[in-house]
Amino acid sequence: MLARWGDIAEGIGDDAAVLSSPKSGSLVVSTDASIENVHFRREWLSAQEIAYRSTVAALSDLAAVAAKPIGMLLALTIPDSWRYEIDSLADGIGEAARSSRTKIVGGDLSEGESLSFTITVLGESNRPLLRSTARPGDRVYVTGELGGAQAALSSFMRGETPAPEYRARFAHPVARIQEALWLTTHGASAGIDISDGLTADLSNIVAASNVCVSIDVDRVPAMSGVTPLDACASGEEYELIVSSPGSLDAAEFEREFGVALTEIAVIEAGKAQVQLSSKGQPVPVPEGYLHFSK
Amino acid sequence: MLARWGDIAEGIGDDAAVLSSPKSGSLVVSTDASIENVHFRREWLSAQEIAYRSTVAALSDLAAVAAKPIGMLLALTIPDSWRYEIDSLADGIGEAARSSRTKIVGGDLSEGESLSFTITVLGESNRPLLRSTARPGDRVYVTGELGGAQAALSSFMRGETPAPEYRARFAHPVARIQEALWLTTHGASAGIDISDGLTADLSNIVAASNVCVSIDVDRVPAMSGVTPLDACASGEEYELIVSSPGSLDAAEFEREFGVALTEIAVIEAGKAQVQLSSKGQPVPVPEGYLHFSK
Repeated sequence: MLARWGDIAEGIGDDAAVLSSPKSGSLVVSTDASIENVHFRREWLSAQEIAYRSTVAALSDLAAVAAKPIGMLLALTIPDSWRYEIDSLADGIGEAARSSRTKIVGGDLSEGESLSFTITVLGESNRPLLRSTARPGDRVYVTGELGGAQAALSSFMRGETPAPEYRARFAHPVARIQEALWLTTHGASAGIDISDGLTADLSNIVAASNVCVSIDVDRVPAMSGVTPLDACASGEEYELIVSSPGSLDAAEFEREFGVALTEIAVIEAGKAQVQLSSKGQPVPVPEGYLHFSK
Repeated sequence: MLARWGDIAEGIGDDAAVLSSPKSGSLVVSTDASIENVHFRREWLSAQEIAYRSTVAALSDLAAVAAKPIGMLLALTIPDSWRYEIDSLADGIGEAARSSRTKIVGGDLSEGESLSFTITVLGESNRPLLRSTARPGDRVYVTGELGGAQAALSSFMRGETPAPEYRARFAHPVARIQEALWLTTHGASAGIDISDGLTADLSNIVAASNVCVSIDVDRVPAMSGVTPLDACASGEEYELIVSSPGSLDAAEFEREFGVALTEIAVIEAGKAQVQLSSKGQPVPVPEGYLHFSK
């Protein structure tokens, strides 16, 4: 794996990696596990895609708080039946590390019964984007177009082949780290990444901030062929939701990143909850995203 | 688990934990996995002991480089058959965190087929103790008394009950963090913790430092009933090996920590290898410690 990674791996082999501390600001850390038959199934994706996606899921937690990556540690469990895929697994991890401009600074390799990736990401931030800092009057924005990840997963779980554009969203999410840094620089006040679905993750912001929000579901950016309600419930998107006291320049954001930035609601004072409406009528909030589970 | 941990857990529940950066010195990080039927068997130890030992194994990597802990992240996979033990698992982790004076700053809980602990430890150090900095003329010291962990494991693997003093060494190792800080303050030049056995781990120091060393096995501190050669091969001890250009005050160390510090060899110039001798005769170097493996 080290041979495949080249200069994006460093310091591996010692008991611990020694890194420079962030010169200013805070240290941001998170750990995230992706386990075969719990978080993914082998038959759905290539080995490289599985490894890439598991790594992005971890890196997305740095995007969620608008931290710049400084390194990651990988604990991999690789059963015998996956051994021949080890180069592809390394390549998927390497692709995710490179695209987030970070390095692999430590690792631990074990045998075991299931393929699993436990990835710890380290970052730094002068101004971490928390969940608890949305205020009444803030606008709520979401990046990208939602619904593809869930649409692909639903197809897989029915034993069908997803449409290529949905499959791509499922197999190849992007950790929106550069986007998050732009958003916080331009005034974002609170943020989260979409792992459980727009509604569920926005609920985490309103609960932590003790505010409420009503989303007109027809404003939610849905992929073609996906209903707005399905877009609201689609998890593992790894897009960002942010609040901002000022208006954000969506056109500039899109020029910069080639990704949409859509205003979908305004934070209000009131009982902490997310409400949905369509054409002025309330819409029942769908259940939280049901992650794949065997 | 959070309820069991009380104030030793903080910041869990957000996408990422935000910590103060080390004010001076380097950031030290390591990740370590302990997996049921790969690294331990359920029938050997209590749930609390298994969790404690897995956590100490990770924390010991901070001791190996003489770093002061600043937090740890836990990724736990807990199968249904272990659910009823969750309080005991939390208590074992909490006991290890408290004894190393650190906090649990993040986590990820998954279902899965095997109980596993993937623990990432974060520390800080002004002067990390590396493997590559032993020099000819340095004395080599080891902490504690060796052999109990291997003796207990051998008994378990034969289906026998180990002697209580050996079982205690296996079930309740200590991450020698305070000891490592003392050793580095008093001039230690290189260090490692014993996970694969004294001979194997000292080989890592001599290889990284490009020096050689000859150990008189009769000077190796062995637990009562353990042969010196078995003590040299005993892994998962989590004792420390350090080199030091100056003499270390073993009596003061023992008064401070209640743990022996024994000089066992002197680093020499020459081909990077560890040699063993007894009463002036060379002794074949035993195979590296055979970790338990199903």
